[in-house]
Amino acid sequence: MARWEPDASGRLVEAAMQLYRERGFDRTTVADIAARAGLTERTFFRYFADKREVLFSGAGTLQDFLVDKVAQAPAALPPIDVVARAVAETGQLFEQRRDFARHRQALIVAHADLQERELIKFASLASAIGQALRRRGVPATAASLAAEAGMTIFKLAFESWIEDGKKRDLGHHVRAAHAELEGVVGGARRRGVTAGRAKRSPRGAGQRDGR
Amino acid sequence: MARWEPDASGRLVEAAMQLYRERGFDRTTVADIAARAGLTERTFFRYFADKREVLFSGAGTLQDFLVDKVAQAPAALPPIDVVARAVAETGQLFEQRRDFARHRQALIVAHADLQERELIKFASLASAIGQALRRRGVPATAASLAAEAGMTIFKLAFESWIEDGKKRDLGHHVRAAHAELEGVVGGARRRGVTAGRAKRSPRGAGQRDGR
Repeated sequence: MARWEPDASGRLVEAAMQLYRERGFDRTTVADIAARAGLTERTFFRYFADKREVLFSGAGTLQDFLVDKVAQAPAALPPIDVVARAVAETGQLFEQRRDFARHRQALIVAHADLQERELIKFASLASAIGQALRRRGVPATAASLAAEAGMTIFKLAFESWIEDGKKRDLGHHVRAAHAELEGVVGGARRRGVTAGRAKRSPRGAGQRDGR
Repeated sequence: MARWEPDASGRLVEAAMQLYRERGFDRTTVADIAARAGLTERTFFRYFADKREVLFSGAGTLQDFLVDKVAQAPAALPPIDVVARAVAETGQLFEQRRDFARHRQALIVAHADLQERELIKFASLASAIGQALRRRGVPATAASLAAEAGMTIFKLAFESWIEDGKKRDLGHHVRAAHAELEGVVGGARRRGVTAGRAKRSPRGAGQRDGR
């Protein structure tokens, strides 16, 4: 077997996905994955720390892409729009891989340790995006909130995108998720209450009643 | 040593916190914690799975409290206000423990594996709160978003509460965080753009330009 294997990483990911679906994540070993890909275990470990990491091989690329897009956004754009737009543009990365993304998502939902790894991925994305926003001059708190809210939009949009029978692009789902989050968070405005801010919030009164 | 120890759990938490601060989380063993508390390792493991879990002993109580408050909230309250109000009310649980909370937070920030456990705790809270909202008749997506946004508010409010030199209560910080999130997420409205919804969002046009 040659020492250098063309697209060994991609073949390992493909093999792992096949096996996880055929026999389940728990019953698949690294040896199984390497064998299915026609590679050695040693080659596997050159690319991935363990069988969980195979499903997160794109996390670094995704983070770099989002940080770049945030850095390049027009200066006048509000932070949440900067993040939502960057998230919408990740559609370029996923466009041809909707089936893969759906299968991956089903695996994650079904396995607690994959869910934990996914949480870490999103926390890392939020942290990197928050930093990128601060480098644009966004104040620290607003940067963190926009990054966190952006990841909430991302998760919702991604889930509806992979299930979308009409195959609308990720940007469509990001805009819908953003609008929905805006509706949910801006509760006071929707019901026509005066949109007071922190110091004289209409919610403040209600909260004091309840304590 | 008696088999039953009054408040063994509380003594172990206290001993662990002392040791984590004195010699660091990594250099503290379960044996050290048990010895400092005047208890056996066996007693430690009756309460906690490992030295990480000691810092999360209140997670179950917190979750039950939040789920209860969500269930009991007035029927007419918008979901995000239900969650923010429940979060504000957790001030009752933390009021006397601001110093403890601050030290705990510093430990979590400094240790990746504690951060991961904290992420899991918040994901679990969001999931439980989302379910509690759905039981109130809130549609699934709005319930998830309100729960996620509520946890974003909780994290920000909690961080500013533990650092607040003026010792204002958690409710104050929750209202401020909620208002700040509302400002960040409702970007389109703040800048006076027509508040279009998903189908004709003003952000939509900008996004298409950028792709």
